This record gives sequence, C-alpha cells and structure tokens, in this order.
Amino acid sequence: MQEFDLIHRYFDWPATHRAVSLAVGDDAAILTPPPGEQLVVATDMLVAGRHFPDATAADAIAHKALAVNLSDLAAMGATPLGFTLSLGLPETDSAWLESFSTGLRAAADRWGCDLVGGDTVRAPQLTLSITAFGSIARGTAIRRDGARAGDRLAVTGTVGDAALGLVVALQPDQVPSGLNDADRAYLLDRLDRPEPRLAAGQALCGQAAGLDISDGLLQDLGHLLDASGLSAEIDLDAVPLSPAARRWLDARPADIDRVLGGGDDYELLLALPPGLALEPAWDLTVIGRLDEAGPVGTVRERAGRPLPGRRGYNHFREEGA
Amino acid sequence: MQEFDLIHRYFDWPATHRAVSLAVGDDAAILTPPPGEQLVVATDMLVAGRHFPDATAADAIAHKALAVNLSDLAAMGATPLGFTLSLGLPETDSAWLESFSTGLRAAADRWGCDLVGGDTVRAPQLTLSITAFGSIARGTAIRRDGARAGDRLAVTGTVGDAALGLVVALQPDQVPSGLNDADRAYLLDRLDRPEPRLAAGQALCGQAAGLDISDGLLQDLGHLLDASGLSAEIDLDAVPLSPAARRWLDARPADIDRVLGGGDDYELLLALPPGLALEPAWDLTVIGRLDEAGPVGTVRERAGRPLPGRRGYNHFREEGA
Repeated sequence: MQEFDLIHRYFDWPATHRAVSLAVGDDAAILTPPPGEQLVVATDMLVAGRHFPDATAADAIAHKALAVNLSDLAAMGATPLGFTLSLGLPETDSAWLESFSTGLRAAADRWGCDLVGGDTVRAPQLTLSITAFGSIARGTAIRRDGARAGDRLAVTGTVGDAALGLVVALQPDQVPSGLNDADRAYLLDRLDRPEPRLAAGQALCGQAAGLDISDGLLQDLGHLLDASGLSAEIDLDAVPLSPAARRWLDARPADIDRVLGGGDDYELLLALPPGLALEPAWDLTVIGRLDEAGPVGTVRERAGRPLPGRRGYNHFREEGA
Repeated sequence: MQEFDLIHRYFDWPATHRAVSLAVGDDAAILTPPPGEQLVVATDMLVAGRHFPDATAADAIAHKALAVNLSDLAAMGATPLGFTLSLGLPETDSAWLESFSTGLRAAADRWGCDLVGGDTVRAPQLTLSITAFGSIARGTAIRRDGARAGDRLAVTGTVGDAALGLVVALQPDQVPSGLNDADRAYLLDRLDRPEPRLAAGQALCGQAAGLDISDGLLQDLGHLLDASGLSAEIDLDAVPLSPAARRWLDARPADIDRVLGGGDDYELLLALPPGLALEPAWDLTVIGRLDEAGPVGTVRERAGRPLPGRRGYNHFREEGA
C-alpha cells in the first residue's frame, strides 16, 4: 500500500474541534488556541514489547498511546485539542490497521481530541510516538514545583492495578489463586486502557501542584518532592486499592512493592492546599501530607512501616542493577 | 544511566524563546504563542538505515531530524518556536549522545527553536520522532491547496543534490568518475545537513501556495496539483542544478530520474501569482507554470521531453513494485 493511501484510508477523518484550523493533509497542521489561553504540549513514545505486551490488541494499543499522552495533559490541568501520531510499522497489515484506526478514533472522540497530523514509516518494531496539545488559562497549569509544606497529598482512583495487570498478562502463574476471572480481566483492562484524569485535572488547575503516576507512586512522589523542595509522610493504610488489588495483597502481601513501585497507573498525584474542599467527582483519596520534616525528596510512613525504594520503571536501568 | 540523568545531562538546556513558558522537566511544556497568531505543528519520524545511512554521524542525525521538521514549518511560512523529541535508543552510548546533543543544540540555536520536551525509550533501532511548533499570522499559511491557474511554479535552491548524495553514501562505485572530492563532499552534505528554507517561507506567507520537496520534485508537484485541482507545464532546462549535479548529469544523463524523483531535498516548491516580484534573497528559480490545460495532477514538459513517473520515495512501496 502507498503511504498516502494508508494515511487517507486509516488516519484521515474530519476534525471536530474548533481550535483545529487545518488537520491531516498539508505539510503541517494549524491550531488556533482559544484567545488568552496557553498551549500545553506532551509527548510519549511507545515500543511494542516494552511499553505494552506484544500480544496487546491493536485498538487497545491505540487507546493506550493516546491515553498516556492525555494523562500528561490532565496532569497539567489542560483541555485536549489535538494530537499528532508518528507510527513505525514492521509491516502493512490491513486488519491490524483497521482495528488500530478504529480504536484511535474512538479514543480521540472520547476525549475530544483531533488527530491533526502524523507520519508513517517502516520500523523493525511497532513504535508509536504521539504528541498531544491542550489549552489552559494562562498561569493556571498544575506544575510539580508548586507544592507547599502543609499541602495534603492525594491520588485519584486506585493505585497499582496496572502493575498487577502486567503480571496477569506476562506471568499468569504468579497471580494469586484466589483471584477470579473478573479480577484478572479488571486488572488487564487497567493496564491496557488507562483513563486520563482530565476532569479532575481541569477542575483543580490553578489550585494544585502535582503530576501523573506513570513511573510508580513512590517514584513520582519523589519527583514532586524534589521539584518542590519538600519531604512527605504517607499512610500506607490510606492508599486506595481496587477490590482486585486488595484481594491480591491479602493473598500475597509482599506484592505491595509492585503496587507502590509499578508504573502505568496514569492516576494523578496531587498536592492540595489544606482549605480546599474535595468534590466527590474528582475521585480523590488523601494519602498523606507534604512537609519539611525530612531531607528533600524523602518519604516516611506514618506508622514507621518500611517503604520500598523508589522503584519506578526506568527504561535505561542496567540489567541486574 | 537512569532515564532522568540522561535527560538532564543531554537534553535539558535553558529555553530562549519568549513563547516557551515551561520547557523540559514537567509532565508537559507550556507555550504562549504571540497574540493573534496561529500555531503550526509538523511531525516526522526517522529510522536509522531508512531515513539516513546507519553510518551517519550523530550530530548530523540531530541536524537532519530537526531540519526536516522545520522544513515543514518553512513550507507553511511559519516561524519556529520549539520542538519535542522522542528518542528510541538501542543502547546508551555516552559519546554518541554527547555528539547528538551538541548537534541538536547547535541546530536548535541556529533556527531559534527550543527543545521543550520529549521522551527517551529503548528501541531495537535508532528511532527519532520530532514534533515542531511554529507561529504564523492568522490566515496566511502557505497551503498546497491554494495554487491558481496562471501561477508561476518556482523552487528554492537546487534540486536533486540529496538524491545524488545518497548514491555517494551508499553506492560510491556508481558515482561518475568525473566528480571530484569537493563535489562528493558537497552532495553528501546536502543529504546530511538540509537547510530549512525558513526565510523564503516567512517572506512568502500570505502570497503563495506550495509545499516542501521531501518526496521528490515530481511527486511533490503532483501533491500540489492534486490539492489545487490543476496541471502544470515545466521546463526541464530551467530546473536549478548545483555545479556538482550538473557535472554528474553531464557524465550520466539518465540520472535525471534521480534528480527529479529523489527525495530529501527540503527545498520549497511554490506557486506564485504572476505579479509578485521575486527577491534575490529567496533564491527562487521559476521552472514552469500552473494551468488547467491537462488532467488534474498531470505535468507536461515544455519541449515535449519525457518525464519520469512520479517516483518519489514511498516508505510502503512493495519490494519490486
């Protein structure tokens, strides 16, 4: 198939966002952000076998690739406008492309974000690079350097599901026998189909500091503390867990390391001023407090329980290190 | 090396553009385009061994990866603001990264374009995806669908050097013996270090239609004609050639196919209204005229000489097709 046919067939649908003045088809796209707003830009590259299991369905890959980028926009409090997609393909498989395209369009529609441009090339392994654009009122972005001592530390949703889902996908014999099929399906879905926390981010911009949990709760908490020059105390018992994750930890308590250190949750980790009332719709759980009681970047457990080291996912960690 | 150390060491330098409100280090970057301007967005993915020879120097790869994206901005008439870089690396080689980083920063400084964010991952083959952002006065972008019958067809610089440079790089025994070392070095340099035609694009926005020559003169001319619903007549004798390319064609006339059909020139191909005075600084050569004399998308040679088919580079062409 010719590159132009491929783009036309699978990646060229009408833009719907009024900020998108020109989408796929020219040398570049043209965006017209709402007057007075700033543009927020995030980019993530995903490689098959590294960022998702090789067997992941094409539509789930599309969903995840867009979701992880929009999670970065959510973590700034931005509203999505559009995205570009660079796609490195080992082969031209029409059934795969059809499923990928369908999944991408569904995800784009779901989050109100237009595909505005991209590139398709041959690559030895399936490789996706998305750059997502959003808009935000000037000066209100949720930054990781804006937390203050006394802020509550809160997280959206539940933590650790994706890390456990990765065990379900790749090491099914390691899954505790007490987990039923619905638990397994739930954890896999959390791995494959993360949901960017756009509504919470948008509601809290101008009022919070924070970031999204892509590298693992404790590692990302470390980033927040380093950037803001603080330490933290957290309460392990307060960390929100899904019923499936709770059953898992009841059966195998040592896997708390995976829950606190595994990546791919794409929940938001936020520092919230003490007086801010929390809306139920934001799905927030307070898990601790930021302070200056310890060295910058350190985390203490309220009851003195040990915490795993900062063990988030690191693409360049040496083998065995 | 840890991912964060790698980013900090090689990809984190102060932003200089006043439109860049927040650069590398948070979940996303924040851009504040000049009031009343639109944002232009282009993206290209490059894979080693496919978009540049495996042996290409790291600083040249950085230069080219940014240049091809900025060429898309130039082809819209935009002024660069910033870019993101996703980098898939097979290994962490400090000397390579040092050279790549130095080349990238030099290119970014040269074109006034800040690195605002990115991602680094492991990949089986060196893979780069850049997304570049520029700004442009509202409604003045140079589009490929804006040409009119009667427009002159013009090209910046010289055509075909990069295609001949690829022969120098990969099939040195195919280079005509009359070419001297300086010719070979010149052609290689044109392949490795394209120069985006930013000044010409910016000067002509609001007054021209067109695109950049990335797939080959004839194929890209076809895109312009298809988008604008026109045909064209070109004069082969008018196509601007470098002295090295002229010597090459004198020795091997059949390689006119490479010159007209080879990609990677990154010159601008423009449709210019008849009355527009051409400034010498734009380095433009008129090579033909747009009309409605033939079927849409077709090109005739003024003296009736045969033209190669539209033979631009196509990443998804089947082997042997």
